[in-house]
Amino acid sequence: MAADNARPVALVVGAGDATGGAIARRFARGGYTVCVTRRSADKLQPLLEQIRAEGGQAHGFACDARNEDEVGALYDDIEGRLGAIEVMVFNIGANVPSSILDETARKYFKVWEMACFAGFLNGRKAARCMAPRGQGTILFTGATASLRGSANFAAFAGAKHALRALAQSMARELGPRGIHVAHVVIDGAIDTAFIRENFPQRYALKEQDGILNPEHIAENYWMLHMQPRDAWTHELDLRPWSEKF
Amino acid sequence: MAADNARPVALVVGAGDATGGAIARRFARGGYTVCVTRRSADKLQPLLEQIRAEGGQAHGFACDARNEDEVGALYDDIEGRLGAIEVMVFNIGANVPSSILDETARKYFKVWEMACFAGFLNGRKAARCMAPRGQGTILFTGATASLRGSANFAAFAGAKHALRALAQSMARELGPRGIHVAHVVIDGAIDTAFIRENFPQRYALKEQDGILNPEHIAENYWMLHMQPRDAWTHELDLRPWSEKF
Amino acid sequence: MAADNARPVALVVGAGDATGGAIARRFARGGYTVCVTRRSADKLQPLLEQIRAEGGQAHGFACDARNEDEVGALYDDIEGRLGAIEVMVFNIGANVPSSILDETARKYFKVWEMACFAGFLNGRKAARCMAPRGQGTILFTGATASLRGSANFAAFAGAKHALRALAQSMARELGPRGIHVAHVVIDGAIDTAFIRENFPQRYALKEQDGILNPEHIAENYWMLHMQPRDAWTHELDLRPWSEKF
Amino acid sequence: MAADNARPVALVVGAGDATGGAIARRFARGGYTVCVTRRSADKLQPLLEQIRAEGGQAHGFACDARNEDEVGALYDDIEGRLGAIEVMVFNIGANVPSSILDETARKYFKVWEMACFAGFLNGRKAARCMAPRGQGTILFTGATASLRGSANFAAFAGAKHALRALAQSMARELGPRGIHVAHVVIDGAIDTAFIRENFPQRYALKEQDGILNPEHIAENYWMLHMQPRDAWTHELDLRPWSEKF
Repeated sequence: MAADNARPVALVVGAGDATGGAIARRFARGGYTVCVTRRSADKLQPLLEQIRAEGGQAHGFACDARNEDEVGALYDDIEGRLGAIEVMVFNIGANVPSSILDETARKYFKVWEMACFAGFLNGRKAARCMAPRGQGTILFTGATASLRGSANFAAFAGAKHALRALAQSMARELGPRGIHVAHVVIDGAIDTAFIRENFPQRYALKEQDGILNPEHIAENYWMLHMQPRDAWTHELDLRPWSEKF
Repeated sequence: MAADNARPVALVVGAGDATGGAIARRFARGGYTVCVTRRSADKLQPLLEQIRAEGGQAHGFACDARNEDEVGALYDDIEGRLGAIEVMVFNIGANVPSSILDETARKYFKVWEMACFAGFLNGRKAARCMAPRGQGTILFTGATASLRGSANFAAFAGAKHALRALAQSMARELGPRGIHVAHVVIDGAIDTAFIRENFPQRYALKEQDGILNPEHIAENYWMLHMQPRDAWTHELDLRPWSEKF
Repeated sequence: MAADNARPVALVVGAGDATGGAIARRFARGGYTVCVTRRSADKLQPLLEQIRAEGGQAHGFACDARNEDEVGALYDDIEGRLGAIEVMVFNIGANVPSSILDETARKYFKVWEMACFAGFLNGRKAARCMAPRGQGTILFTGATASLRGSANFAAFAGAKHALRALAQSMARELGPRGIHVAHVVIDGAIDTAFIRENFPQRYALKEQDGILNPEHIAENYWMLHMQPRDAWTHELDLRPWSEKF
Repeated sequence: MAADNARPVALVVGAGDATGGAIARRFARGGYTVCVTRRSADKLQPLLEQIRAEGGQAHGFACDARNEDEVGALYDDIEGRLGAIEVMVFNIGANVPSSILDETARKYFKVWEMACFAGFLNGRKAARCMAPRGQGTILFTGATASLRGSANFAAFAGAKHALRALAQSMARELGPRGIHVAHVVIDGAIDTAFIRENFPQRYALKEQDGILNPEHIAENYWMLHMQPRDAWTHELDLRPWSEKF
């Protein structure tokens, strides 16, 4: 515990996928005590073991990121037991395309709740922890749909646009208070089990570096956190060399 | 009733303010049977009387635009009794600025629910009515915050960004099906009782045309609806000559 | 002459194509003395005759829009003989796609000179005429390439981006001085002889309103000029219903 | 010479200011033979000596970046004598604000010629060198004016918008050919002699990290070049924490 407290803490909200996991491992390698969350904690076990096997310190938490009370308790618990959260990465949100004619109100709400409302709850709570200390980094994962609404993407593009507006609003308010808020637009398929299983043709591009390696994405999150405060990036995009845009 | 059925129908969702009222009156002058909604119907009485005094046909409806069932019933009722809805204008959404540190989860949700989720429910239902007919116009009212997230605007900018993403997604899907979806960015104070009472200095600009006249805003909604389908506008901005942008 | 002087003047720079011609005719129908330019005046004859046959007043001028002296002399001549220029429409610029590897310095320069530098010379001169009077309208024709640089479009996108930056800079400086500066993004093929002869498949879309009618484009320029100054549009897009965007 | 040829080459066009110099030094530290240019080579002497004193290899070249022949000869000379150019950084462009009413045609042209046309000449030549090899990095320095035209910025915003369009067009064409094209938006004052002498109040912000450190800017150019090709950034912004945006 003492060892833990000496280290700064990085919290990755939504470490259920390859990207979140890679980000957590990157911060662990950088000397951070890494806290990772997903809805059910048992699924975090392999990631925690991997981080520890690599010599890092990691803690897993079950947290419904859409639940205000659970989010509040999570941060308070971490800050009380493990130390000040220096970095928060919000990495939740998934797309299920649908014609506007068929989209259900329930799904439209759920997509927003996961990809945006949970981002608000976590962003706000992180800001509340960091503002009195006058420092910290808050990173949001965006997508192509953050910038453009396409046919069949009303729900996802809406949630992602709103998350980007959150990142911008927070950056403009919190930058002058010493908190670095940034938004990463990931534009392309990521090397995940989901892509491998559902889009085999896309996945075959991996051999030519045509899909994003989560480790390389993670390096950019680390880079953003390391930027000195006279030269902060608010937004960058990431895509494979062969991706149309 | 027969007379009503011969006329096309324009539905203005959120006719509680000066802009919604002016839009309704403009379409009434253009020969439309105008249906206007707000949460409580009795407040619509003055607007209905004004439209009728100007020779127009108008119907008022109490409708909670965030309620899927009420929205569905509203459109079915109008289409059944009054005729096909040719135009739907979604004109709801208000801003209450707040630091991200103080913003409540309840308010963040409510702002989105009014300005975006209600837009989804109404946009989807209008599209469902119009798609089989292969024509119709759906207009969304945007704001400066649709384009940019500013300090203290996380909730409103989020909702307005999401509404713009909805408009874009719908335009890209429904344009090729004959439905004109457009988004109007209103950038400046409007001549309303709210501005007069709360921002007297701003309101004083009225003498030099420094605040938007709702009648002039309405003219642009009418113009958008009148555009022939080989030259449709998806987005335009409106601001006073003296407004900084 | 006396009759001419009583009418306001609209100047259309680049009236060699269908769009410029339609804009000129629209302003003539609206009661303006219309001045149209292209490099060689004799090619303007059919347009002038058409306008006069429709009851309008029109004057043709040979002017190399890239030549500062010619541009200066044109405006001075018009203002001296025909009256104050109330509207200036800049409507020049053509695209010849090329790989960046093959693009010539000469063509890169020429595309900019026509589509942007000529726009600067005319925009500045129009502003100098209008600023002392505290009113006037300056309209620039943009394209999809105004918003986005695509493969093989380096020259055209560069010129069009720069023209848009000119329009924005002028709007922000001159709006508060009473001059309405707007930029129209035309996104799609226009019904012209060029499209008819070179892109017959595209042209065939005309039957389904799939290409832009110049008359309908012109109506939007007229509408922009007619906007009262409390509700000015700075930018709008125009595209056929069936166009992908 | 043998030693030089074993090293990859980085070419910094416009190494006359603090930023270009810092970028050159960063690539020299990274093991690159650095070639730096400005209009008169003698002013490069201090930078060359600094790089060599730090253990790097550097060559200075006089080159008018707006001159097609000089640009062509420069690259041919470097590739022939020193090795393949792996990175080209285009870092030229300065702003002299002016009301549109007072802007001269000469200055409007000169600003474009330096900030955009020279970028085209160098970008194209670099692409021609790199395309046959299927790899390389081309980096353009942008500014706030790349994204937005402001009052008194017509010339600079025009040139910078056009440069950004060039970067986008090149990225979309050359990315799939293995060449990484990126655009860096620098939004804020940089720690230079120019700012120190002309804007002392601004410069005083240096103590609180309120102006950009050229070394930190340079680090981002290095980072962009180092990105593996499955995760390339096309655009990022850089600004001090305290900067309004």
